[in-house]
Amino acid sequence: MNTIKVGIIGGTGYTGVELLRLLAAHPRVNLVVITSRGEAGRKVADLFPSLRGHVDLAFSEPDAKTLAACDLVFSATPNGVAMTHARELMEAGVKLIDLAADFRIKDVAVWEKWYGMTHACPELVAEAVYGLPEVNRERIKKAALIANPGCYPTAVQLGFLPLLKEKLIATDWLIADAKSGVSGAGRGANVGTLYSEVADSFKAYAVPGHRHLPEISQGLDGFAGKTVGLTFVPHLTPMIRGIHATLYGKLTDSNTDIQLLFEKTYANEPFVDVMPAGSHPETRSVRASNSCRIAVHRPQGGDTVVVLSVIDNLVKGAAGQAVQNMNIMCSFDESLGLHTPSLMP
Amino acid sequence: MNTIKVGIIGGTGYTGVELLRLLAAHPRVNLVVITSRGEAGRKVADLFPSLRGHVDLAFSEPDAKTLAACDLVFSATPNGVAMTHARELMEAGVKLIDLAADFRIKDVAVWEKWYGMTHACPELVAEAVYGLPEVNRERIKKAALIANPGCYPTAVQLGFLPLLKEKLIATDWLIADAKSGVSGAGRGANVGTLYSEVADSFKAYAVPGHRHLPEISQGLDGFAGKTVGLTFVPHLTPMIRGIHATLYGKLTDSNTDIQLLFEKTYANEPFVDVMPAGSHPETRSVRASNSCRIAVHRPQGGDTVVVLSVIDNLVKGAAGQAVQNMNIMCSFDESLGLHTPSLMP
Amino acid sequence: MNTIKVGIIGGTGYTGVELLRLLAAHPRVNLVVITSRGEAGRKVADLFPSLRGHVDLAFSEPDAKTLAACDLVFSATPNGVAMTHARELMEAGVKLIDLAADFRIKDVAVWEKWYGMTHACPELVAEAVYGLPEVNRERIKKAALIANPGCYPTAVQLGFLPLLKEKLIATDWLIADAKSGVSGAGRGANVGTLYSEVADSFKAYAVPGHRHLPEISQGLDGFAGKTVGLTFVPHLTPMIRGIHATLYGKLTDSNTDIQLLFEKTYANEPFVDVMPAGSHPETRSVRASNSCRIAVHRPQGGDTVVVLSVIDNLVKGAAGQAVQNMNIMCSFDESLGLHTPSLMP
Amino acid sequence: MNTIKVGIIGGTGYTGVELLRLLAAHPRVNLVVITSRGEAGRKVADLFPSLRGHVDLAFSEPDAKTLAACDLVFSATPNGVAMTHARELMEAGVKLIDLAADFRIKDVAVWEKWYGMTHACPELVAEAVYGLPEVNRERIKKAALIANPGCYPTAVQLGFLPLLKEKLIATDWLIADAKSGVSGAGRGANVGTLYSEVADSFKAYAVPGHRHLPEISQGLDGFAGKTVGLTFVPHLTPMIRGIHATLYGKLTDSNTDIQLLFEKTYANEPFVDVMPAGSHPETRSVRASNSCRIAVHRPQGGDTVVVLSVIDNLVKGAAGQAVQNMNIMCSFDESLGLHTPSLMP
Repeated sequence: MNTIKVGIIGGTGYTGVELLRLLAAHPRVNLVVITSRGEAGRKVADLFPSLRGHVDLAFSEPDAKTLAACDLVFSATPNGVAMTHARELMEAGVKLIDLAADFRIKDVAVWEKWYGMTHACPELVAEAVYGLPEVNRERIKKAALIANPGCYPTAVQLGFLPLLKEKLIATDWLIADAKSGVSGAGRGANVGTLYSEVADSFKAYAVPGHRHLPEISQGLDGFAGKTVGLTFVPHLTPMIRGIHATLYGKLTDSNTDIQLLFEKTYANEPFVDVMPAGSHPETRSVRASNSCRIAVHRPQGGDTVVVLSVIDNLVKGAAGQAVQNMNIMCSFDESLGLHTPSLMP
Repeated sequence: MNTIKVGIIGGTGYTGVELLRLLAAHPRVNLVVITSRGEAGRKVADLFPSLRGHVDLAFSEPDAKTLAACDLVFSATPNGVAMTHARELMEAGVKLIDLAADFRIKDVAVWEKWYGMTHACPELVAEAVYGLPEVNRERIKKAALIANPGCYPTAVQLGFLPLLKEKLIATDWLIADAKSGVSGAGRGANVGTLYSEVADSFKAYAVPGHRHLPEISQGLDGFAGKTVGLTFVPHLTPMIRGIHATLYGKLTDSNTDIQLLFEKTYANEPFVDVMPAGSHPETRSVRASNSCRIAVHRPQGGDTVVVLSVIDNLVKGAAGQAVQNMNIMCSFDESLGLHTPSLMP
Repeated sequence: MNTIKVGIIGGTGYTGVELLRLLAAHPRVNLVVITSRGEAGRKVADLFPSLRGHVDLAFSEPDAKTLAACDLVFSATPNGVAMTHARELMEAGVKLIDLAADFRIKDVAVWEKWYGMTHACPELVAEAVYGLPEVNRERIKKAALIANPGCYPTAVQLGFLPLLKEKLIATDWLIADAKSGVSGAGRGANVGTLYSEVADSFKAYAVPGHRHLPEISQGLDGFAGKTVGLTFVPHLTPMIRGIHATLYGKLTDSNTDIQLLFEKTYANEPFVDVMPAGSHPETRSVRASNSCRIAVHRPQGGDTVVVLSVIDNLVKGAAGQAVQNMNIMCSFDESLGLHTPSLMP
Repeated sequence: MNTIKVGIIGGTGYTGVELLRLLAAHPRVNLVVITSRGEAGRKVADLFPSLRGHVDLAFSEPDAKTLAACDLVFSATPNGVAMTHARELMEAGVKLIDLAADFRIKDVAVWEKWYGMTHACPELVAEAVYGLPEVNRERIKKAALIANPGCYPTAVQLGFLPLLKEKLIATDWLIADAKSGVSGAGRGANVGTLYSEVADSFKAYAVPGHRHLPEISQGLDGFAGKTVGLTFVPHLTPMIRGIHATLYGKLTDSNTDIQLLFEKTYANEPFVDVMPAGSHPETRSVRASNSCRIAVHRPQGGDTVVVLSVIDNLVKGAAGQAVQNMNIMCSFDESLGLHTPSLMP
């Protein structure tokens, strides 16, 4: 099969190594360059022995020419880096998928407030397509620049989408109580994510306001066709991978068969799995896979709907969704390289 | 100091061994008997080497006479056992603290529905005092029979209490999203709580209805003076000890200083610690201690109040609260034997 | 590509579900039957939601005819079951790979002593080939019945093999200090492997004697050409998957380049990866992969050699090695279906 | 009871917070100062909420006068700091217990090689007493300066001591295979000890040489009365607290009753617990306690002796042993403030 030339900017974090794991097994990808200022010259497999025998490349200094020769580039850098490369790559005709937040928020002022910096290329924000295939598949096909969604936003949006689209819940008091594994906090040296700090403990964080809040709200507003009132509380769980979003809404119409609605909405989606009624999806059921598994409940038959939505934050919440977007952009089978079962136990 | 004679019925589970840990260090307790049909004859410290050098007793067959000679008995058995002993102990003038659920629900029909059995001594249910000292301290002082609260109910009730008492939140849509460590599921052999089943994963369970729901509702109804609408969703977290309850309410009066309200409510409580504004209590901050730590938030200054309430499910959520109740019943200092710092890390 | 018809006897344990994960992605396998008395009639993906969308079969009662129609059958049952099926399958011309211990020990009396039962078909023990491809590849090609090695034995034998073959260490005092994740203890309900019993703790077990001792000794004796003196101490580690064997030997010849020896020995092995000098392989570097990674040390340049050998106990230590054996027996590429990178983090 | 004035230099690491936990509950200690350059001015309980209600002090800049007014000072700083304070404190008549390594190695040249710095007060090294009470109790009573032992050295020395003292094992090939929880690596920000790096994985480290090797060797040489040959391999285990040392020796006299020897040796030791024959101590059995639990085995009755020795690295391996030393130096009951049961589960 023909392959495309793919580059990765900034591949030393967890989304980077996860991209490498997925791309190493992807039959249509020829990985030609992976950049890192800090690790330039070092073999990828020396830093990540899990990739010995699978990735032969060494990290290199970012180089505009090499990147421009790629068909598609993933940016797996911290927030604020992709926006400094984007214009150049666009001009060179390279497709760009940014796994950070630079192009996710359409309102640049809002983005600048939450991310605390000035945007380097606001004109590209409008052009960028938010890469949630279940919502934007047609636009992704033609996109040159993808804003790959955040992990929490993926789990929360897919869980609320059918209810908001169908106007079945009150929009003024939505609750998203979300729990994440520690890898979501990244691979940076940090006292707060040391093993001895987070193992055998559980906590909420950023209750006054988390950067994923405006991203989620933007999506939910779009589904509802109006501004929704959302409370989003993220928590840190002592596990490596996984997000579990527990979503609460107040039904405005209690006659609809919610289970059926979810099943219909996602019937043709390769990566959204609506579980049988009464299910409680575990995060491990999606470990290492690109699936989002969803269950819907109405406790005691009341007017509260509870949606349970789980993803692997590094796959459907980051690298896997990025590969899914690449597949769509390049007219590959959407599941190519992503169709492996979860790891259990 | 004078000591009292104390017995434990059924000491082979986690609440049992935690009671032993606390009582072994309690200066006013003389532990005279601990029963277990399954382990009768075996030294306690053989089953629980952590107690070597601290507990010299052996488990014995339950014997009415020996128990009747105690001043106070803790029942740490599965649900449905304490109610078969209670009358006899009452008649012998022995104080009884039941750590299971037999006497928690005042409406016997409700109890029988949720626990799936016929109550053996419904007449004692009315007499029993619900052992949440922050609510019932005066009645506990005079009680002969204590229904020691469940773990989730303790964390949730202490978190909602000030808001409901002061009628500051809408009572028709309360959300309690609670997360528990695995020890809450007990020490029984069970595939569902094997290490390889629950480690590195997270899930909700019992969303359609958990036995702690009627217990919590009964308490909240009491605080509010009317029936509240509560959605309670428990989750299993890969940690040994700890409960984190994240509570959501809709403020009906947004002028009250919520932080101040909580601080005032619990100002004189030895085991409720209201954290400074902006805090995110971790479950490990109460590991092995009898404290409940609480923080209150109003995200983005809106009309949603978020309460974070953490306890150690085996201490304030079980054995520690039982000892606190014993202290109150026996006119000891309420903190006696409970005033040790948490274990961190 | 042509496929073979494959059956699994007893697929509800961890080796069973791991086999399913690997076979579901294997291009030459047509999984036609999976038996379980306890779960007969239940969809595999109901018990293991991680396989939703990948395995469509339901468990069925064991049925001789259905199994006899397979080209190859994996037995993933407890010890003592495969030996009751083996003769029938052999007679039907079905290849059999037993993941339990029934055919691993050549001396039937030794087997009966350690496993506490009478062997049902001692005549097949001689015929069975011990399925360690690095040692027995040629015999595996022609085998009808494979005794798939145990997890500890795989890690320990691959670590000692080069040293014993070359007669470089004293054979009278070998130490194998091995550490296993909890999944090695299986999916049975058991107090000893509950999360709350084994999390955040570490212990040795079976120091007086573990069933894998005679299996390892038999292998090492074969490498050395004489009886070796081995002390084997297994430990339980709070992790799901992984074995780390730390092996100690006393060099009899300190001039040999040990690193080079290991590199040469395993140069052509697809699943043994000798790490660069000075390495410390982590078990996670082989999580979900069929690799055994090995590092060799001579601390302070002395006459003690330390070998570090890591595998995933469910893959190279069980299901992956079984698939590797199947590939060899069926003349498939030996790595077919096994060439995916490890999961990190 | 009279109290002594106690100070802590550098209390922001794990040994510091553990000292605080223990000292807060110690009836003869008046904690008057705790220094930290980085956290000066901050309340201790703000950094460590587990100490809310137990420690009221704030961190302060190190100040010679305040420290000189103490009766006893603990130094819980990184290696190389205590040696810069020691002389001044000695001259002021303050007893000093150094929890780091500055005074542990009697041969200053060896210390300087392994720790990579020039010793600031070599003349005090000779004067310092190595604070292993089971070996040096009488000297500790009169000491002004204590070198508190390392965590691995405590577990390994207590395990080998009876065998070497009685000359029962060959001294030329001792193996200490030791496993530590992650808190042993400290509270510094470090990629290598992030949750996502060490959870669900196991590895050896520092096989070519660990700083605790010369400390252990010095102790074992002393027991044996000659230079021993020791191979020490430390491993990192995914748990917070605990060390498990598995020790191997070759018996030179196989007639001695090893179990009895250990029981006799430690019969009067308050913090060494020799388990019954056949035991496998778990690290959790000493979690939060100052005990070292030891079991002895002779697998298959051969000439190899296997000693299993477990401690809590932060208690008997650091802060607890320091308090034990303080108790001895100040003629308090040796167990004062240390006699609480372990935390289980």
